[in-house]
Amino acid sequence: MAIPRSVYPAPFNITRTSHVVLTVKDLAASRAFYCDALGFVISDEDDQALYLRGIEEACHHSLVLKRSADAPVCERVGLRVYTEDDLDRAKHYFERAGLPAALVEGPHQGRTLHVCDAVGTPLEFCASMAVRPRLVVQFPQHKGACPQRIDHVQILAPDVQGACAFYCGLGFRLSEFIAPDGTDDLMFVFLQRKGNPHDIVFANGAGPRLHHAAFSVPDAQHIIHACDMAGSFGFGANLEYGPGRHGPGHALFAYFRDPDGHRLEVFTTHYQVMDIENEPVRWNLSSLRQRSWGLPPRRQWYDEASRFLGVEPRAPARTGDPMTLEKFLAEEE
Amino acid sequence: MAIPRSVYPAPFNITRTSHVVLTVKDLAASRAFYCDALGFVISDEDDQALYLRGIEEACHHSLVLKRSADAPVCERVGLRVYTEDDLDRAKHYFERAGLPAALVEGPHQGRTLHVCDAVGTPLEFCASMAVRPRLVVQFPQHKGACPQRIDHVQILAPDVQGACAFYCGLGFRLSEFIAPDGTDDLMFVFLQRKGNPHDIVFANGAGPRLHHAAFSVPDAQHIIHACDMAGSFGFGANLEYGPGRHGPGHALFAYFRDPDGHRLEVFTTHYQVMDIENEPVRWNLSSLRQRSWGLPPRRQWYDEASRFLGVEPRAPARTGDPMTLEKFLAEEE
Amino acid sequence: MAIPRSVYPAPFNITRTSHVVLTVKDLAASRAFYCDALGFVISDEDDQALYLRGIEEACHHSLVLKRSADAPVCERVGLRVYTEDDLDRAKHYFERAGLPAALVEGPHQGRTLHVCDAVGTPLEFCASMAVRPRLVVQFPQHKGACPQRIDHVQILAPDVQGACAFYCGLGFRLSEFIAPDGTDDLMFVFLQRKGNPHDIVFANGAGPRLHHAAFSVPDAQHIIHACDMAGSFGFGANLEYGPGRHGPGHALFAYFRDPDGHRLEVFTTHYQVMDIENEPVRWNLSSLRQRSWGLPPRRQWYDEASRFLGVEPRAPARTGDPMTLEKFLAEEE
Amino acid sequence: MAIPRSVYPAPFNITRTSHVVLTVKDLAASRAFYCDALGFVISDEDDQALYLRGIEEACHHSLVLKRSADAPVCERVGLRVYTEDDLDRAKHYFERAGLPAALVEGPHQGRTLHVCDAVGTPLEFCASMAVRPRLVVQFPQHKGACPQRIDHVQILAPDVQGACAFYCGLGFRLSEFIAPDGTDDLMFVFLQRKGNPHDIVFANGAGPRLHHAAFSVPDAQHIIHACDMAGSFGFGANLEYGPGRHGPGHALFAYFRDPDGHRLEVFTTHYQVMDIENEPVRWNLSSLRQRSWGLPPRRQWYDEASRFLGVEPRAPARTGDPMTLEKFLAEEE
Repeated sequence: MAIPRSVYPAPFNITRTSHVVLTVKDLAASRAFYCDALGFVISDEDDQALYLRGIEEACHHSLVLKRSADAPVCERVGLRVYTEDDLDRAKHYFERAGLPAALVEGPHQGRTLHVCDAVGTPLEFCASMAVRPRLVVQFPQHKGACPQRIDHVQILAPDVQGACAFYCGLGFRLSEFIAPDGTDDLMFVFLQRKGNPHDIVFANGAGPRLHHAAFSVPDAQHIIHACDMAGSFGFGANLEYGPGRHGPGHALFAYFRDPDGHRLEVFTTHYQVMDIENEPVRWNLSSLRQRSWGLPPRRQWYDEASRFLGVEPRAPARTGDPMTLEKFLAEEE
Repeated sequence: MAIPRSVYPAPFNITRTSHVVLTVKDLAASRAFYCDALGFVISDEDDQALYLRGIEEACHHSLVLKRSADAPVCERVGLRVYTEDDLDRAKHYFERAGLPAALVEGPHQGRTLHVCDAVGTPLEFCASMAVRPRLVVQFPQHKGACPQRIDHVQILAPDVQGACAFYCGLGFRLSEFIAPDGTDDLMFVFLQRKGNPHDIVFANGAGPRLHHAAFSVPDAQHIIHACDMAGSFGFGANLEYGPGRHGPGHALFAYFRDPDGHRLEVFTTHYQVMDIENEPVRWNLSSLRQRSWGLPPRRQWYDEASRFLGVEPRAPARTGDPMTLEKFLAEEE
Repeated sequence: MAIPRSVYPAPFNITRTSHVVLTVKDLAASRAFYCDALGFVISDEDDQALYLRGIEEACHHSLVLKRSADAPVCERVGLRVYTEDDLDRAKHYFERAGLPAALVEGPHQGRTLHVCDAVGTPLEFCASMAVRPRLVVQFPQHKGACPQRIDHVQILAPDVQGACAFYCGLGFRLSEFIAPDGTDDLMFVFLQRKGNPHDIVFANGAGPRLHHAAFSVPDAQHIIHACDMAGSFGFGANLEYGPGRHGPGHALFAYFRDPDGHRLEVFTTHYQVMDIENEPVRWNLSSLRQRSWGLPPRRQWYDEASRFLGVEPRAPARTGDPMTLEKFLAEEE
Repeated sequence: MAIPRSVYPAPFNITRTSHVVLTVKDLAASRAFYCDALGFVISDEDDQALYLRGIEEACHHSLVLKRSADAPVCERVGLRVYTEDDLDRAKHYFERAGLPAALVEGPHQGRTLHVCDAVGTPLEFCASMAVRPRLVVQFPQHKGACPQRIDHVQILAPDVQGACAFYCGLGFRLSEFIAPDGTDDLMFVFLQRKGNPHDIVFANGAGPRLHHAAFSVPDAQHIIHACDMAGSFGFGANLEYGPGRHGPGHALFAYFRDPDGHRLEVFTTHYQVMDIENEPVRWNLSSLRQRSWGLPPRRQWYDEASRFLGVEPRAPARTGDPMTLEKFLAEEE
């Protein structure tokens, strides 16, 4: 299979990943985890929802937690378009592609377009949000991981090749990808609009399901402090994987599961990738077995993910055989 | 005066500040300063020039040092356009504006367009460069400040308002500005294309002259380590100002003078600014006297800058009265 | 003059510098500075006094602030002896030396011995204190500089040679010293009992006066964060000197003045010095003009210090000619 | 069983843990691991041995690696006494106790006393070493973990109670200990002379065997950098456990296995413990199952250790049932 090429100029101007909307069972527990332990800032809250942002974000929210008695799900992944005009062009684009597209009104953000991408991921686009103060230098309010801003989301899907082609058609660029040795069958694609390696990542797996949302933190020390603060607030066991060093993207990371099982990554900042001569970086599937350091993740890190509201996951045609912690220990014996 | 509005879509697609070309008297001294002490990576060198990049840059160079027996100058500030087509459109744009525009060939980069902006700053645009490995995780090669990448340049100019209007016409957005209390006379403008506060900054002063080029570093610890390494290699006195905390932009910074007097800023990462609802942040000139902490800079930090090759600086209509270290100490007595 | 030799075994066992007792005008202002901005922990407080400790200290207090309407002074410097028996032996030692020595009772600490050293510094010894929880891993309570523990005090005195001889007689070891080039006239002596470079430092100057108390912090990042937090709480101008890198001792430092003018140093950890083969490190006075990096301190850093209660300072026989910021700027012009 | 009390004054003055002597198969491989990757400084080397120290140590060596074709072992653990007189008193003390004690000569250190402790651990005492420059501020020579100095050793032994009693008889103080809930049967004892939690640690297990030697590093960032550098030099798989946060002692840690299987801990600095009122801190065995964060160590971390030369390990009367990674994963399923 061929590596898809990005369409330029894009049919409409997506600028970045904007937010995720998750349902949770207990807002107080979520608040303890996200705000007390990890340092997210509250933009608004009531008995139905928590609207959170990172310490440098001026946008109203990058993480929305909505109370629900049902099994926790991700309602939608939010993306930003630059102008209201881009929003209208987006609507036409999805309609022409025969995909769902409906303009709705939502709290704290401008006109919002609900769509589904080609692999069934529920997305929403908006061009503006309510504005809140950036707290970059409000040091007394910095806590925990000191999350700066949302950076990307990762989605499990059975058709990574199709997802990649669809997003390249929207003007996304492929920064890195993983394929089995000797083929171009895309197993993992890192797609970006904002000029660093990721806005949206697709990985082979039953889906579409949300694997994680990722927030950048200032430096290595804040990764460790996030772990220490999680431990202090009784969320030590919620650390699922890390601290560790990624292969693709090169970031230092830690993965947490929130009280409802949604996965959160905190990581140190990515490199800049903006220039046309930057070809996608290829990683052979086999090379991923050679981690720089650290044990491999548990099987659950590969398998478990948040369902999207009303979307039944489909199994992938081929399943990978990733190196899990369980397998690693069995092989060592 | 009115705050200029950004043109959207831009007449051609500038993606970021790319590089600066400086002349120096002694390449060995420059190499000791930039590479041994501060940790820049050498992409190429010969007896006429040093081509340097930051540890995460894949582009061939973000800092070019050319040997010259003449008084040290800045030859040009380099900017990136996205495609070769953008380069052609840039040429037409400058020609139509009656500004110099000439396509040239240069080493290690694609077709290059030499122009001058509306205030006389010599610029060059290119759409591609030779590619070198990113050294993000080549930890044994990380040294000193561990400069990641070029972030912005600051230019002194007598007509900040005119510079701002010109760059907004190119699609730059104004992220922050400084004006005297009660007026909109622009004294300091922070202009960006790449989605963080700066690509090019104009400050009121005799010019156009290059005040400094700025490179991002991973965290606060690397600012301190840059100072310690500068001291270790005999460049301690080259630290001109800092470590300190900026008002506009909020970064932690340190300013060095290189062996030829060119000024370099190393700083920690800026916030992201991409959304249309982000209005320019206004700072009153008077508020800058209230630094968060740290002594004010010496007078030389305000007054001294690198001339551009063949460009005679012009004095500004009005000169500011900034708080210098000399004035601060005199007032305290 | 000869460098004094340490008496071993010591006449009684002093283990470390323990605390300082300062008077202040406004306990609320002191609390805002020390606790809110810099992160000291409150062990006890009432309307007469604040008892503070560092985040890893189990002892009740390392910093006592007592409310007084009089001009702010240092009442006493506290030192620890190992056992109650050492306390009795200390009493005999001072009595035999013809120095004041009186056992008193004080809050939150065991039997306490009030003495004056040979240069007139009011000291107090105790062998035990009330115990409070170490907060090393109570991360939610860590703030500002995250002061770990008291490390040393510095005292200005006119007879540094005499002070050094006296403390070596108590078993202190000289880790480093400063003398004019070509002589052994001690201008600055770093004396220690606990196995790192300082417990008590004497520097030539009108005294005895307390130049500063010093607390260790975890790392370079906390030095910067202390500055940022000081700025956030309105104490940015209280940063008097630094961040900078010391010559003797090698620590990274920042000096603050508290709301009453008492000076506080926060610094990163010192090296270990315990072995008998470690001879005192000599620094020539001239070599101190070559700072590794950073501007020299203002004149006030050399001249200003806290008086001891009821002790009239005496002028030194010779006054130094240190490099001040004022002199540095004048020489540069 | 009763918690042993420390003898004061000590029969002779031990000041700190000084060094370990290990045998290795391949000095070049050891050098790559310890020096290139982890940043140890070479004091001397020839084709028979490598003498290494931390960046702030003035003593000649804290880690001696001797080439041997035999199975890798630890030859001896080195401790410092303060004076030559203490060395003679040590000799008498061990002789009177019926334990081996022989004065020998060794390279780069003063008169050396070879002894065995009550549980059979081969020790050596010396009062002085050759002196090398402290490299605290020789920043260009700092690499990897930037190990500052040796801090402690941990020894597996079948009779922890006996070891504790023996070392308390030498004047060691017990800072922390682990015992099964409801008993004072010592399973883990942290013993110190130098004023922080550890100089020598005994843990229940087949022994005596050396579990690890531990070196302090400046901060959390250097723990991560040690992992990254280990990965860069091909020693990523040598990271056995961590980065993680200890319960007892509270340090942030990472454990590596060197190319011969000897275990090394790098960790951030410990708290100070010098005051007589500091009672030993008790940890119930059950409480250790509640880690603050991070997965438990693999079984090998509990079981594997370096034999001492010529010492046949004995099995403990009771074996613990620690939480291993293998058991944790099995329980989770």
